[in-house]
Amino acid sequence: MIYLDNAATSKYKPQAVIKAMTQNLEDSCNYSRGSYNEALNKSLEIEHIRNFIKKSLNAQSYHELIFTPSCTDGLNQIIFGLLSNIQNAHVIITTFEHNAVLRPLYMLVKNNNLQITVLRPERTKYIEPNQIEREIKDNTKLIITTHMSNVTGTITNIDRIGIIAKKYSIPYLVDVAQSIGHLKIDLKNIDFISAPAHKSLHGPQGIGFIIANKNYPLLHTRFGGSGINGESIYQPDIYPDGYEVGTQNTPGIFGLYEGFKFTYNNFNKINEQILFLSNILYSEIKKLDNIIIYSEKNSPIISLVHKSKDASDLANILNQNNIAIRSGLHCAPLTHKYLKTSTSGLVRMSIGLNNTDKDIKNVLNLLHRLNRIY
Amino acid sequence: MIYLDNAATSKYKPQAVIKAMTQNLEDSCNYSRGSYNEALNKSLEIEHIRNFIKKSLNAQSYHELIFTPSCTDGLNQIIFGLLSNIQNAHVIITTFEHNAVLRPLYMLVKNNNLQITVLRPERTKYIEPNQIEREIKDNTKLIITTHMSNVTGTITNIDRIGIIAKKYSIPYLVDVAQSIGHLKIDLKNIDFISAPAHKSLHGPQGIGFIIANKNYPLLHTRFGGSGINGESIYQPDIYPDGYEVGTQNTPGIFGLYEGFKFTYNNFNKINEQILFLSNILYSEIKKLDNIIIYSEKNSPIISLVHKSKDASDLANILNQNNIAIRSGLHCAPLTHKYLKTSTSGLVRMSIGLNNTDKDIKNVLNLLHRLNRIY
Repeated sequence: MIYLDNAATSKYKPQAVIKAMTQNLEDSCNYSRGSYNEALNKSLEIEHIRNFIKKSLNAQSYHELIFTPSCTDGLNQIIFGLLSNIQNAHVIITTFEHNAVLRPLYMLVKNNNLQITVLRPERTKYIEPNQIEREIKDNTKLIITTHMSNVTGTITNIDRIGIIAKKYSIPYLVDVAQSIGHLKIDLKNIDFISAPAHKSLHGPQGIGFIIANKNYPLLHTRFGGSGINGESIYQPDIYPDGYEVGTQNTPGIFGLYEGFKFTYNNFNKINEQILFLSNILYSEIKKLDNIIIYSEKNSPIISLVHKSKDASDLANILNQNNIAIRSGLHCAPLTHKYLKTSTSGLVRMSIGLNNTDKDIKNVLNLLHRLNRIY
Repeated sequence: MIYLDNAATSKYKPQAVIKAMTQNLEDSCNYSRGSYNEALNKSLEIEHIRNFIKKSLNAQSYHELIFTPSCTDGLNQIIFGLLSNIQNAHVIITTFEHNAVLRPLYMLVKNNNLQITVLRPERTKYIEPNQIEREIKDNTKLIITTHMSNVTGTITNIDRIGIIAKKYSIPYLVDVAQSIGHLKIDLKNIDFISAPAHKSLHGPQGIGFIIANKNYPLLHTRFGGSGINGESIYQPDIYPDGYEVGTQNTPGIFGLYEGFKFTYNNFNKINEQILFLSNILYSEIKKLDNIIIYSEKNSPIISLVHKSKDASDLANILNQNNIAIRSGLHCAPLTHKYLKTSTSGLVRMSIGLNNTDKDIKNVLNLLHRLNRIY
């Protein structure tokens, strides 16, 4: 099988990820709960992991790292943590947001009369930072942008938007689901991010993290044991433990760490290799008259439609030829509305470390063949 | 090290658990999202897992299984899913509840004026089902009992309470964190359970599941991509997908399944072995004049205080002798209030499949020695 669904979950996992998870399953215990050396040592290791990740992202002294079961869960924690006790607030987002951002927000539209401004690219293909600035109102309580669209690969200039958010003292949340591990992230002007382990960080599914500026305190959205203040029936407001309820996914945390280290230690090499293959695929597909590409050049994501084949039909043909891709709406309905592909959907190919020259050649051969037939 | 913290996380993990997780990391993909055989096959396997677990617990046709990142997360989903849009409701719980139940509820006391009746054992050591019946009011919207206390090992008669709940048409939630895999569970008269994989099911941390009676629909508490209705900015109310947001922990689900199968295929053998060792430890400790046991006989949990040593001092001595236990309040503040151990805390030893006769002998030798010194 030629796996081209890396934007959903990267196929390649370093052996160090698997080894760390296996080891943590074999010596399972509850860190930060037990009073024995093994548990205490694990707590120290996890502190080290937090600091390593924070340092790699240029986190500031006011930033805290909280582990989450997924990027989606982290986005829910941040959005509801900032907005669920406010009525009539206003947020600014972009047309590139994923349902992990849209669905919490539209819930708040129903329950808290939240007002949402959805920005689309105007003169360029990108959301320009001044578009954000123009939309800021007195009741703007949050700016959210995805760093990289999961449909088009469009990159948003988060550094410049961060400076604007800071200027107006509005918290700024970046959804780094698709970018972390692929694009460098500098938290200097960013208040919140939510990240998954299983995409470009080459870690496992089931674990992620948020980084939170604790000057914008988060309301709790999950309640339970936290290894601290066990005597209290109220959730402790202490970062990070008060926000990490229940037994944590220790094998996942260690797997995330190994994936993160692997990716950050080989950052340029990994991403040059991926973009090299992506760009061959992109420029060769561009030459086919029956295919329209909707994604950006120089991106690991290539989204397309065939002029005379439904996305799902094309997906089936690719599947029959052992090529694994995703087709449909990719959980980003406003992006499809913007692209006018809500009906057709898109076939998304996404390149990863698992892919070779030969994979690309085989995919192109098939697409050439289809171009001749249809 | 002699690991006696199995009530927190079981040390023993079958090789099948580790193998299934490793395999799912090596062939990572997003089930129920991709349109290729590998993803579609994984979806079918996960359907099989849901059905296997449901059948093993005698789930009824109205029961749905939803995977969760932890037992705590599942309890939050159920409690907020049933109560967060109601003011002035009443719930009945027991003094044995964990903070994973107490903290969501006391949040609702603050925000929704929830009234809570906390039952303590009266004439017997147990909560009698008629105590529950006596407390039912017109506004009673939920009954919650832990199946087995994580502090005392006290077992609640969930079958009989289930019959009462059904009689009054009040949803009944059982926290099976400590019991699942140790005690058989029959869902015939139970509406909701939340379960972790990493305790007596011998699975990994970071995954669990709830079973929900869909005749009591749950409000969503997490919002995001669900693999269905991607075109909608609103969360789909479809079980189970609409409640499983974001990329799921696939290695975790397969690890949970292997742990579940191992435990259910060897149920009696596993638990006879554990209780055999527990009962030796219990009855020998009972003979020591300086130690008071607070837990029940015939339980894998043995909680105690030393008459002249603080729980934390005793924990330190045990740790120095390579015996891993938990000391303190065990996230169950009302249990400690009931036992009058809120100040002293308790040392909890919990037996698992990792333990041997020799472990028990060594622990008893140390406790005998301490008994002579202090």
